[in-house]
Amino acid sequence: QGECSRKCYDIFVLETVCVAWFSFEFLLRSIQAENKCAFLKTPLNIIDILAILPFYISLIVDTVSTKNSSKPGGGAGNKYLERVGLVLRFLRALRILYVMRLARHSLGLQTLGLTVRRCTREFGLLLLFLCVAMALFSPLVYLAESELGAKQEFTSVPTSYWWAVISMTTVGYGDMVPRSIPGQVVALSSILSGILLMAFPVTSIFHTFSRSYSELKEQQQRAASRQMRQLEESTKLLDGDSTRRLSVTFPPGAAGQEGQPALDQEAK
Amino acid sequence: QGECSRKCYDIFVLETVCVAWFSFEFLLRSIQAENKCAFLKTPLNIIDILAILPFYISLIVDTVSTKNSSKPGGGAGNKYLERVGLVLRFLRALRILYVMRLARHSLGLQTLGLTVRRCTREFGLLLLFLCVAMALFSPLVYLAESELGAKQEFTSVPTSYWWAVISMTTVGYGDMVPRSIPGQVVALSSILSGILLMAFPVTSIFHTFSRSYSELKEQQQRAASRQMRQLEESTKLLDGDSTRRLSVTFPPGAAGQEGQPALDQEAK
Amino acid sequence: QGECSRKCYDIFVLETVCVAWFSFEFLLRSIQAENKCAFLKTPLNIIDILAILPFYISLIVDTVSTKNSSKPGGGAGNKYLERVGLVLRFLRALRILYVMRLARHSLGLQTLGLTVRRCTREFGLLLLFLCVAMALFSPLVYLAESELGAKQEFTSVPTSYWWAVISMTTVGYGDMVPRSIPGQVVALSSILSGILLMAFPVTSIFHTFSRSYSELKEQQQRAASRQMRQLEESTKLLDGDSTRRLSVTFPPGAAGQEGQPALDQEAK
Amino acid sequence: QGECSRKCYDIFVLETVCVAWFSFEFLLRSIQAENKCAFLKTPLNIIDILAILPFYISLIVDTVSTKNSSKPGGGAGNKYLERVGLVLRFLRALRILYVMRLARHSLGLQTLGLTVRRCTREFGLLLLFLCVAMALFSPLVYLAESELGAKQEFTSVPTSYWWAVISMTTVGYGDMVPRSIPGQVVALSSILSGILLMAFPVTSIFHTFSRSYSELKEQQQRAASRQMRQLEESTKLLDGDSTRRLSVTFPPGAAGQEGQPALDQEAK
Repeated sequence: QGECSRKCYDIFVLETVCVAWFSFEFLLRSIQAENKCAFLKTPLNIIDILAILPFYISLIVDTVSTKNSSKPGGGAGNKYLERVGLVLRFLRALRILYVMRLARHSLGLQTLGLTVRRCTREFGLLLLFLCVAMALFSPLVYLAESELGAKQEFTSVPTSYWWAVISMTTVGYGDMVPRSIPGQVVALSSILSGILLMAFPVTSIFHTFSRSYSELKEQQQRAASRQMRQLEESTKLLDGDSTRRLSVTFPPGAAGQEGQPALDQEAK
Repeated sequence: QGECSRKCYDIFVLETVCVAWFSFEFLLRSIQAENKCAFLKTPLNIIDILAILPFYISLIVDTVSTKNSSKPGGGAGNKYLERVGLVLRFLRALRILYVMRLARHSLGLQTLGLTVRRCTREFGLLLLFLCVAMALFSPLVYLAESELGAKQEFTSVPTSYWWAVISMTTVGYGDMVPRSIPGQVVALSSILSGILLMAFPVTSIFHTFSRSYSELKEQQQRAASRQMRQLEESTKLLDGDSTRRLSVTFPPGAAGQEGQPALDQEAK
Repeated sequence: QGECSRKCYDIFVLETVCVAWFSFEFLLRSIQAENKCAFLKTPLNIIDILAILPFYISLIVDTVSTKNSSKPGGGAGNKYLERVGLVLRFLRALRILYVMRLARHSLGLQTLGLTVRRCTREFGLLLLFLCVAMALFSPLVYLAESELGAKQEFTSVPTSYWWAVISMTTVGYGDMVPRSIPGQVVALSSILSGILLMAFPVTSIFHTFSRSYSELKEQQQRAASRQMRQLEESTKLLDGDSTRRLSVTFPPGAAGQEGQPALDQEAK
Repeated sequence: QGECSRKCYDIFVLETVCVAWFSFEFLLRSIQAENKCAFLKTPLNIIDILAILPFYISLIVDTVSTKNSSKPGGGAGNKYLERVGLVLRFLRALRILYVMRLARHSLGLQTLGLTVRRCTREFGLLLLFLCVAMALFSPLVYLAESELGAKQEFTSVPTSYWWAVISMTTVGYGDMVPRSIPGQVVALSSILSGILLMAFPVTSIFHTFSRSYSELKEQQQRAASRQMRQLEESTKLLDGDSTRRLSVTFPPGAAGQEGQPALDQEAK
């Protein structure tokens, strides 16, 4: 117990430092932004807020719950706080989205983001196909197994949905296996259709990914060469103040942010 | 029990409303169709009938079985009705094909349908390859396991077919696992050949899918622009009656139906 | 027992009829062939022999063993016969290769055969990669699990080979699962390398398959049109005897056989 | 025991002969190399050292431990030696890298090596994507299962990492399976994102592999034809000594080594 609380304390300190740094950086950027509304609507900033906010909320909730627990007879409030705590723990599990902030500097993560934004149609198609196939095969396998099978692993249609997902993605945990011949025939057709359906939109997503990758690479190189030229020009002018202003206006990280709206327009 | 019957009743009412609407719409379309025979032969209408009909048949069977069960000594008839009921429940599990009716409005589902119609040859090839590999490896693994293995999970050749399917599609539930060395060698070769065989026709199916997708997209845009032009022309004529007739003749949904026969001819 | 022997008898009769027909057809073809040696060396004929021969051998062995078992004191001979019987049952499990004879008439199976002959290099590469990865990861996972893991599922290095194959092909039966942290790290790297290694030669095999498919299709169409022209010419000549001879020389099935040596030369 | 020690002895003799041959060959090559430092830095030579060295170290350690165990009271030293032995056994499991030395003569293994060197960026991307997805889904599934699930297979977040890896690569051993509905929803999204994420960089790795393969093939053919020409020229000169020197300078194996630096420059 003592060792665990020690570790927890260390992690808490580390997290506080990180969140403090990220909050400070976020505040500076939001102050510098001209259009506050547009600033809050860009996807990367929404991710930032989602990653930072749960820490502050959980701090507030902790202090409130500590006060409540000291008072006698706060049972109803505690139950409510427990549920809030569950939601908070869920949100804090999204802390990993801090990593997405590196997207400003990593070409790979930028490409991933751009592909996701461009392929919403294909992702929707993939989910639609999967849902139709699930809704088609789950009742069939439930019918075949519950009527004809000896071992009753398929207790209801919703549990069959889980089986259908695991089979169609060829994961195959083996916790639910059809034992009757009709159930196995349904399984075969669901697996085959799953492989084919999953594969359909994947090809177009692939092509979009590789196209986005080469586009972003080219754009980055152009941005880098433009920056180089600007630096050269500003050093020619020998005007210290304007150089400093320029280097503030175009830092290496901001180049990616400039480029993305342009790409978004192309994608539409 | 009471709660379940309440839910069942709600679902029954919902289904009745849906089926009533679909039947009404189907009747209207069948009345409007000039060639009744060709109308009944188009795949989407066959799916409609398959989705609507089981509801009416099960209603009839239910009333008949209620009458029979009130009469004494109808055991033979009841057994027959039970079998009919199983078939009906199977057909009613196909209710989900209602969704396919959305294909008239979703580009993705239309592409899926067109790909299936164009790639029947490749699907046949895939099934043929799979069957040959299954028929080749199942007796081998049964022989290796039943003669040389200690644990007898492979009780017969037909159960080995199930194992072959699950292994070759790389699902791997783990309910049947070869334990002897020769059985494992057979398993290795069957898995490798399964990966390769499954992958062969998939590439050509992929290409057909992406080609169909771009074709349908183009066609839809052309149909949309044609409709726009017609609407403009009809508004120029300022002739209310003809405009109404035109908009009846070319509703947005009908455009897809027009286009499909044309594509079918291209596919042949 | 009685029911089974009845079924066995039916299957025996069916097989005898099939083998008799195949033997008759094989004899006719071997008599008609000019170069007996080249005839016996073509892969499809070797498959024919492999499919037909075990039936005759098992007939001979059965009669010999029936004689031996009637004589007292033939124990040593019986043991020897049992082993021969096992080999025979293995060979008779290859009966399914009868299906490959359909390759003369199915474009898909012909393409499969041609792809296998053209991609021997890639198949070798695939096996080489798989063997290297197996030989690399099996001792590592055995070391990690036997030294550090609690449950000892990995009893020896050879059993680890089985685990490596099942993991690298992403089948994952779940009969052997690493439980220690180092074992799981090895598992992760083996799975990732397996996915990548398996995928490397698959792309080039794909391209060969689709190229072979279109080549064979074109060739078949050319052969069909040539036959049509010959038939037309022969009907113009109005010479009954020569027409009959021509139609014997170029039957529809023989066209594929003609084409294959030509393709073999291209492949070399 | 006796049989095992016999086998162990045979394997030891075999290994000694192999290592002796490899060491001799490595020494000759290192003596012939002009730039010793560059010679030791080429990847294939590093693999050679990794494959040969553990044998000698384990020989030394064995003799030291035999001396120590004869002396009384060497417990602390023995414990230290045990740990060294574990590391040594790990290094000796890398013996299989001997096979990589065949890369000098196998086009397939050379292509593999070249692809790995060219695609470090893509491999990094693949690992980055996998780590982000793992770090995102593991706490979510742990939260869903530990709070809401009945069976507690997910004991901690680190064990959930193992589950995430096995699910996202579609291996699916089945040792850890989410049972609650929220856990299964998380599982579905993690599997889908796993399939897509794994697939993203694979396409570009594929293209690099096939490009490298054709490049190396062409290069090999050019090298072979160049060697042929040199041999012809040297036989024209009829000067025995110079021919011998030339054939020493350009052995068939060295051609690949020559070519690789050139390709490395192209890749950069």
